[in-house]
Order: sequence, then structure tokens, then C-alpha cells
Amino acid sequence: MQLAMIQDKIVPFEQLEGIYLDRGLYFGDGVYEVIRSYNGRIFAFEEHMQRFARSLAAIEIKNVDINDIRSRVKKTFDTAGIPNAKIYFHVTRGSGPRSHVSEDNIKPSFFLTVTEIVPNVEKKTKGISAITLPDLRWKRCDIKSLNLLANVLAQREAAKRGCAEAILVDEKGLITEGASSAFFAITRKNLQTAPLTANILPSVTRKFVLKAAENARLSVVEKSLTPEQAKQADELFIAVTTLDIIPVIKFNDVVIGDGKPGELTRKLMDEFQLFIK
Amino acid sequence: MQLAMIQDKIVPFEQLEGIYLDRGLYFGDGVYEVIRSYNGRIFAFEEHMQRFARSLAAIEIKNVDINDIRSRVKKTFDTAGIPNAKIYFHVTRGSGPRSHVSEDNIKPSFFLTVTEIVPNVEKKTKGISAITLPDLRWKRCDIKSLNLLANVLAQREAAKRGCAEAILVDEKGLITEGASSAFFAITRKNLQTAPLTANILPSVTRKFVLKAAENARLSVVEKSLTPEQAKQADELFIAVTTLDIIPVIKFNDVVIGDGKPGELTRKLMDEFQLFIK
Repeated sequence: MQLAMIQDKIVPFEQLEGIYLDRGLYFGDGVYEVIRSYNGRIFAFEEHMQRFARSLAAIEIKNVDINDIRSRVKKTFDTAGIPNAKIYFHVTRGSGPRSHVSEDNIKPSFFLTVTEIVPNVEKKTKGISAITLPDLRWKRCDIKSLNLLANVLAQREAAKRGCAEAILVDEKGLITEGASSAFFAITRKNLQTAPLTANILPSVTRKFVLKAAENARLSVVEKSLTPEQAKQADELFIAVTTLDIIPVIKFNDVVIGDGKPGELTRKLMDEFQLFIK
Repeated sequence: MQLAMIQDKIVPFEQLEGIYLDRGLYFGDGVYEVIRSYNGRIFAFEEHMQRFARSLAAIEIKNVDINDIRSRVKKTFDTAGIPNAKIYFHVTRGSGPRSHVSEDNIKPSFFLTVTEIVPNVEKKTKGISAITLPDLRWKRCDIKSLNLLANVLAQREAAKRGCAEAILVDEKGLITEGASSAFFAITRKNLQTAPLTANILPSVTRKFVLKAAENARLSVVEKSLTPEQAKQADELFIAVTTLDIIPVIKFNDVVIGDGKPGELTRKLMDEFQLFIK
């Protein structure tokens, strides 16, 4: 008789709930989004939904109605009534017997959570420390997939060294992005960040940062940096959906600027605030 | 109120079963093994358990008693009573709120299935077609992790082109391994396969193939091949736990040898049979 075991309990295989056979668990065969709301309004909803649709298409998960997903997100968010919410959702290719190539008629699985964002004032006002680590991720990081073990391991290593973010460096010695953020440097009123390639997530927050930079009359240079160049920048910061702009005040143990969030970074934070009003 | 949605049904976040918050789903933050039995006996049990322990250590999942896992595997296998069984199991870092860095006291999750292997006589007696595709996986494929989306996508592409396996080629133009198998070439009584590096899974079946080659008096060369070299080999095959040796008779649309499983491949299949008696 075909059997399963969950923790230490034997269960008939046929009685397993679908979630245990989800391809998200077996293979990370799915894509996700993280969106946030500010004061009861979902921020950049369309941008996130469009990226989600691109991720689904990139790994060929079909039979997903993006309007239906939009309604589910909206409905759960409205019901939750959390003004500053983190909205996480994923779609996996579905549940079924473990096989790399799935059955044709497999039905995608949807999962979503709406939780409260606890504001991290300290990170924003004092800044964080970051270290560089090798970028061990797969070669399609433009797809926001559930394959995030390399990101997890990098962040664990960063945390052990007292850092809040790992900045990933590829085999050519160039910074790609943070393990869970986009990465930016400011030098003499130039804002620099890596260009969008197959190995960089098209970050929605990055897009708004570039817009903020334009409004703040900074020039934008989309060109990868080396850790050495980053170390010598006037200011550094990361950008992430849940917390938007976070100053980086220490980079590989080197103090950036005077060790406080930089003036232009703070200017960009102010500009960013104008988008969410 | 914090909420979740499963498919289209709203559920209070606090009432979610742990499996929905499993880090295996969120990040692929776990490792797995596939073992098989032949005629009621688990094959290479210790080799698989040792590799599993190494995988756990590599991603720093602690508090797992490998003897306990061994007992769970044995108990479920014995209870199932399936002579030719596929035993799949994984351990993830555990369940909890989604955060790259997990809580310190998180408890690992264990899941296992014992299912029947339907013998695929045709693959073994007639051989399969394979194509090469770029190796898009992460840079630690020596760890048997749940991050398998690149493998899934490669096998989907292979299947579309009528092939049963995708042979992965790295940026240097060298074959690493199959998307779910080890890859071998035989040329003038030399058995060639890629050496074990950070990007190759230390396949248990590979180990037994090399032993079989020794018994069959083939010389073994652990050196990566290019697709061009593979195409010109006398014989090709892949090795995978559930089916051991499978001849490859077509490689990137080129017929290998006379388009039938090669003589030495069949010799190795016979030698392999001796291990499982």
C-alpha cells in the first residue's frame, strides 16, 4: 500500500491533502509577489500584477486568470482591514505525483497572506550594515520564483556577521543586487545601480527609486558596480517593497560617508513618500 | 485581522496549518533524497543517508537526528510492503512567518512517500533521446536541495522536443549532468563522466556505475565532455536512482552508434544487476 509520513505519522498516500504534493514544495515550481499597502492603499498594484503575469508566463504556468488573482488579492486585503499590510502570494504549477514534467491537466495552486507590517524606524533612520557574498543563485533571477535557497543562505551568513543584507557579487566581480533588495550607490549626484538583465529582478521599488531620483534631479547610471567602487561611494542604500529605501551605512566593514544616512538618500526617501500619498 | 487565502477561500492567518507556512514552499529551504528498493530490499540505503546528512549540514539545518530519519524511512517502507518502491523524503527548515532568516527555535519538517515503481522496460531496452540545454541551475548543485525549477524547465523543454532527458551544458560549454540524472559516454572502452565539483550532484547511482565499470574492466575518466565529444562517443547513457542505467540512443538528433543500446552499456547494466541481488 502506498504510504506517506508527515513528521513521524504514517498516512495513506491517497489520503494526503494536495498541499503535501504541491510542486511548490517538491521543486519550487511557482512564482510569487510581495506587495504592500500604505495607509489602506495598495502601492504599485498594477506594476506588481504585471510582473507576476510575466513570471507566470516565463515558467509557462497557464490557465491562470490574472484578473481573478487581482480580485482575490483585493478581496482579502479589503476584508483584512490592515492599513499597512504586507501582501504575499504565490501560484505554483499545482499538486500531483512527483515528476519533473507535470501532467497536462494539472491545476495551478494559489496561496496568499495579508499580514501587518511592523514599521522598522531604526533601519530607516539609522541605516544598516551590509556585506558582499558570492551570487550563487540560478541564471534567471529576472523571474520571481520560489527557488530562493541561495538568497536564504546569503542572508543567514549576513545575519551571522551582524549585517541586515547580503549584497551579491557575480563571477565577474560585479554586484548584481541584494539577497532580497535592489542595491544603489550615489557618487557626486549620480545614482548608480545594475542594469536589468536576466540575473536581476525587475524590482518595482527600483522603478520608483529611479523616478524619485529624476524628481530630485540626480542623474541615473544603470551600470554594475564592483564592491570596491561601492565602498568608495558617497552614499549607499537598498530598496525593498516592504520598507522602500533603507540607507546602508557600513559596507564590508567600511563606514560609508560619515556613518549616517546620506543627505541625498534622505532626499530620495522624501521623494518616495510623495508617491504613496 | 491577518488573513490568508487558499485557492479562493479566505482563512484566518492564525488558523493556517503549518504546511502552508513551510519554508520548503516559500524558499525551497530544504533538502531531499530519492531511494529505491529492489525486490523488498532498500538499495544503497547508507550512501543515500550519508548524502542526506551532508545536504542538511550544507544548508545548516540542525536538530535533525539522522538515525531517527533512517528509522522513519525503514518503518514506512516496511509498513508499505511494496517490493519495488520509490522512497522520497525531504526535510525543510520548518514552518513560520515568511522571512529569509528564520527564527532560531524553528523545528524542521519531515515528509516522506513510499510509492510503487512501474518498471519502464522500453526505456531500458530501447534507450531514450536526449538534448542539450543551458545549465541555468544555481552554483551548489552538489547539495540535493528543493530548488529544482531550472531542472523542471529543462525537462519540460526536452519533453516538448520528444526527449526523455535534458543534458545540461555550463557556460564553458561543458556538460555537467542531466536535469535528473548523471551522464556518461563510452569511447573505445573508456567510460567518461564529469568529475564531482560544486556543480554536480554526487550521484549514488554514478558511484555504482563506476564500480560496475571497474568490474567490467573499462577505464574510467572523470573529465567533463563537450556536446560535440558526446555526439561522437560510441555509446551514451544516463544513470538515475529509480531506473539505474538508461541507454541514450539519440543525442541532439544525432543517432549514437547503431541507434540501439550499446554493447558495453548493456554489459554495465548486467554488472549493475549483480549489486542488487
